[in-house]
Amino acid sequence: MKIALVQQNYHIGNFEHNTEKIIQGIGKAKEGGADLVVFSELSVCGYPPRDFLEFEDFLARCYESIDKIKAYASGIGVIVGSPVRNHAPKGKDLFNAAFFLQDQEVKAVVHKTCLPAYDIFDEYRYFESGTEWQVIEFRGKRIALTICEDIWNLGDNPMYNVCPMDQLMPQLPDLMINISASPFDYDHEEDRRAVVRQNVLKYKLPMYYCNAVGAQTEIIFDGGSVVYDAYANCTHHLKIFEEDFQIVDTEMKYRPVNKHLPVFTSASVLRPEQIIPYLTRRNNIREIHDALILGIRDYFGKMGFQKAILGSSGGIDSAVTLALACRALGSENVLAVALPSGYSSPHSVEDAVALSKKLNNPFDIIPIQPVYESLLTALEPAFKGLPFSVAEENLQSRTRGNLLMGLANKFGYILLNTSNKSELSTGYGTLYGDMAGGLSMLGDLYKTQVYALAHLINQDEEIIPPSILNKAPSAELRPDQKDSDSLPDYDLLDKILFLYIERRKGPREIIDMGVDEDLLLRVLKLVNTSEYKRNQFCPIIRVSGKAFGMGRRMPIVGKYLS
Amino acid sequence: MKIALVQQNYHIGNFEHNTEKIIQGIGKAKEGGADLVVFSELSVCGYPPRDFLEFEDFLARCYESIDKIKAYASGIGVIVGSPVRNHAPKGKDLFNAAFFLQDQEVKAVVHKTCLPAYDIFDEYRYFESGTEWQVIEFRGKRIALTICEDIWNLGDNPMYNVCPMDQLMPQLPDLMINISASPFDYDHEEDRRAVVRQNVLKYKLPMYYCNAVGAQTEIIFDGGSVVYDAYANCTHHLKIFEEDFQIVDTEMKYRPVNKHLPVFTSASVLRPEQIIPYLTRRNNIREIHDALILGIRDYFGKMGFQKAILGSSGGIDSAVTLALACRALGSENVLAVALPSGYSSPHSVEDAVALSKKLNNPFDIIPIQPVYESLLTALEPAFKGLPFSVAEENLQSRTRGNLLMGLANKFGYILLNTSNKSELSTGYGTLYGDMAGGLSMLGDLYKTQVYALAHLINQDEEIIPPSILNKAPSAELRPDQKDSDSLPDYDLLDKILFLYIERRKGPREIIDMGVDEDLLLRVLKLVNTSEYKRNQFCPIIRVSGKAFGMGRRMPIVGKYLS
Repeated sequence: MKIALVQQNYHIGNFEHNTEKIIQGIGKAKEGGADLVVFSELSVCGYPPRDFLEFEDFLARCYESIDKIKAYASGIGVIVGSPVRNHAPKGKDLFNAAFFLQDQEVKAVVHKTCLPAYDIFDEYRYFESGTEWQVIEFRGKRIALTICEDIWNLGDNPMYNVCPMDQLMPQLPDLMINISASPFDYDHEEDRRAVVRQNVLKYKLPMYYCNAVGAQTEIIFDGGSVVYDAYANCTHHLKIFEEDFQIVDTEMKYRPVNKHLPVFTSASVLRPEQIIPYLTRRNNIREIHDALILGIRDYFGKMGFQKAILGSSGGIDSAVTLALACRALGSENVLAVALPSGYSSPHSVEDAVALSKKLNNPFDIIPIQPVYESLLTALEPAFKGLPFSVAEENLQSRTRGNLLMGLANKFGYILLNTSNKSELSTGYGTLYGDMAGGLSMLGDLYKTQVYALAHLINQDEEIIPPSILNKAPSAELRPDQKDSDSLPDYDLLDKILFLYIERRKGPREIIDMGVDEDLLLRVLKLVNTSEYKRNQFCPIIRVSGKAFGMGRRMPIVGKYLS
Repeated sequence: MKIALVQQNYHIGNFEHNTEKIIQGIGKAKEGGADLVVFSELSVCGYPPRDFLEFEDFLARCYESIDKIKAYASGIGVIVGSPVRNHAPKGKDLFNAAFFLQDQEVKAVVHKTCLPAYDIFDEYRYFESGTEWQVIEFRGKRIALTICEDIWNLGDNPMYNVCPMDQLMPQLPDLMINISASPFDYDHEEDRRAVVRQNVLKYKLPMYYCNAVGAQTEIIFDGGSVVYDAYANCTHHLKIFEEDFQIVDTEMKYRPVNKHLPVFTSASVLRPEQIIPYLTRRNNIREIHDALILGIRDYFGKMGFQKAILGSSGGIDSAVTLALACRALGSENVLAVALPSGYSSPHSVEDAVALSKKLNNPFDIIPIQPVYESLLTALEPAFKGLPFSVAEENLQSRTRGNLLMGLANKFGYILLNTSNKSELSTGYGTLYGDMAGGLSMLGDLYKTQVYALAHLINQDEEIIPPSILNKAPSAELRPDQKDSDSLPDYDLLDKILFLYIERRKGPREIIDMGVDEDLLLRVLKLVNTSEYKRNQFCPIIRVSGKAFGMGRRMPIVGKYLS
């Protein structure tokens, strides 16, 4: 049997767009002589549809899509993902389902059993778990069809009580198909391929694994669909971070392909001194780079925007943001604006100019001093001659925010945010100032990773000037300010943050790794008392296993380690 | 047997505070001669602890608290709520549990079965469902102990497959105890008391129901703990929106108490013309008023702040916000600032002054024109003489945001946001401008409800001047601007929004209720394309069944009804 894997980039709720793509995929599969064509999880509506699923109308449109697609299921079997109503009197109203279409009819509907409800996932919010398991018989083959998380329930301490493949095995399937919407992060505890391979080793069946690709706001689906033979050799793999298509003959003998995709290392066993090297290692940073490019491109494309604006300070964060945005959107579509104040170092504007010359993107300079002074004048009676404080620092930062948003509103740009994860973690940023923006590109990268990414960007050609790479980080909001006045060295800070945020280590464990107790408690307090700031932050392209945003839900009024 | 119900206000993660409260409650129960003392759900750590639950350290502190509390469980039985580890090899790592303590020991641990995962609730993110049910025998009584949602699984189409009371009934319990953290909203489909009563009618057992009270960021727990006898009479009820304590003798005959608490009407069957009267009816508005006062007070108290600032425009939203803040925090702690521009109507500042005179709160006036002009000057080369647009409107609004935040940062105020739900729904607000702030008080009230609330505030004494109540709503960001230039009348708009947001009606259903199709699609598009704005908004005190924030999770790049 010939099976086509179709790895596509859907748009949530855009039924016309998604249906058309799927119908095109079926056409291509038919042309290639495929018997069966496989699409990814919830392909008709896009993943994750979130609370759109609470609308009857939304479900009705999913059904309409299935009806349209069904008409093309002649001479070929089709597997697509869609929500489906749960008709039982008890339980949630929907299942997350895979539809098997054949002869222009719905021949089978498989319900997802293992419903992820951690990090960014909320499936149990909408779906009931499947409780019946039935292989699909098609052209002489018995297919064990599962959905994404269904094949991840492995190990000594599995998260779910039921393992669908265990339920299907007594029916003697010939092969496994899994349709997924499995997101990228550089810090996967287990390589997705390792999971596929473990299933193959356990059940001794070949696996056809079809993943989604594309960014949905902050979540990056990286594709990388694969086929494994029954001997656990990877025989086919589709591209990562791109749409792709392959037809695989179940009866042909293939030679195993090289695993040229990196294997993710489980970092849960890292020793403290291994953390920064792990965070900044070239393979991780290269994948992060590609994920960010896809994330930016899809955010703009799916929001219907072409052009971006950002504040270019001459610092490393805005330099990397600008370089990535130019790659993703085209240099001509990215306006960089230097907004120097009286506290800006003389080199700041020069460095920003040099960078934009290199990138060949439009560039402007708007000094903020007159606006800042008009604010100080307006506030003078109220401020009563009190000494310079964080209030004046923030006035400058928010003046930049106001000017950039003014330009964005005038000309239809999206403002790109340039904050990094070290800053966001510790609250070292100004709400409505440097924390403004529609999309954060570096908000899931620690400062040490931003440097590593800068070096990667420079690997073939010096794009980011050395003066930007080598200067000491500074917010430049008061005379001679340096980040190191307020924060520990980034190597130490990032290590602590990684242990606390990604690894959920408590204070005792981190102290036992050799971190000074006072310093640690100070950092944790900064993290936990700045929840209110992050709560108002824009979407962050997610590249780690624990990004701020939907995947990390903390009480704002909580008082814990703070 | 004498049972003490202790209705307390906990602080998430503040173990010392919570433990001390619980120990005090035990002491008071002992003094009153109680045999058993009952606290609310997850009382040791506060509800909802959210992702703090992912920290081993957090669980360890819960256990430490239980250990401390245990020492006071002598001569009395104690029921407290805490997470507990799931030792089974499969499933999630935790249960949401009720600990039964006696003779200074943990005698029983009951696991919650029905785990809410809708709206603001995420319990399945952390907890495994209970699968064993055992009554607790204590001083000759067999107690059926359940946790919150466990008793809500009623009706023809229950959300969960298992109903814990059905499992417990064969063990012939004598009474039911339920410990809850059940939040307030004016739009409950079912009155909490009706649910308690239904359980009593079904199982023919008395019910002792202990709820939490207090605000946790946006969620308001309203208390209102109750006792029902086996004949479904309410014999005791504790206060709403306040801490309270009562001891009830299981053997005494009580006369039913009057149901002076309002019964919520299920609004799902409202006819279109009933919606605005329902939204604005006095009982709803009175409860909303009390919920908002509690919400403000607890937000400030738990964040460790005393003082608030807000922009006082002379409009209805800021007037109501100011009046409520003065009630909640004390007038002396609320600074109102008028920030007139060239487009402000002459009456705006006068009305704001009159209001603050009435409320006797500190007041300041800072004209924004000089700052606005300095921004225009700075942007003049870039704006290239293009006509006045929304960009200039937003510059004014963001200037106000910057000035208010400057004062907040200088003096340690929290900026109160004044946006209402009609604006937030349609994106009729400026990010970092009038959408700035640390807490939104009116963000879950439609404009028609804000008016009703203003009339309630004025019921005994005219606090909000008639000129504020009677003027046409305007953002005053361009000459002669009125809300009605951009939006339909609020009576119509709010009806549509209620149907779409609270009732999840699709376009076809709303059109069938008599709403013009073009208008409807325009409104839905406004709602769905302003998700990116709401995503950056501050916490909104939740008073409805569907508030923006954690309880409504929509894709930002989605393309559905937009």
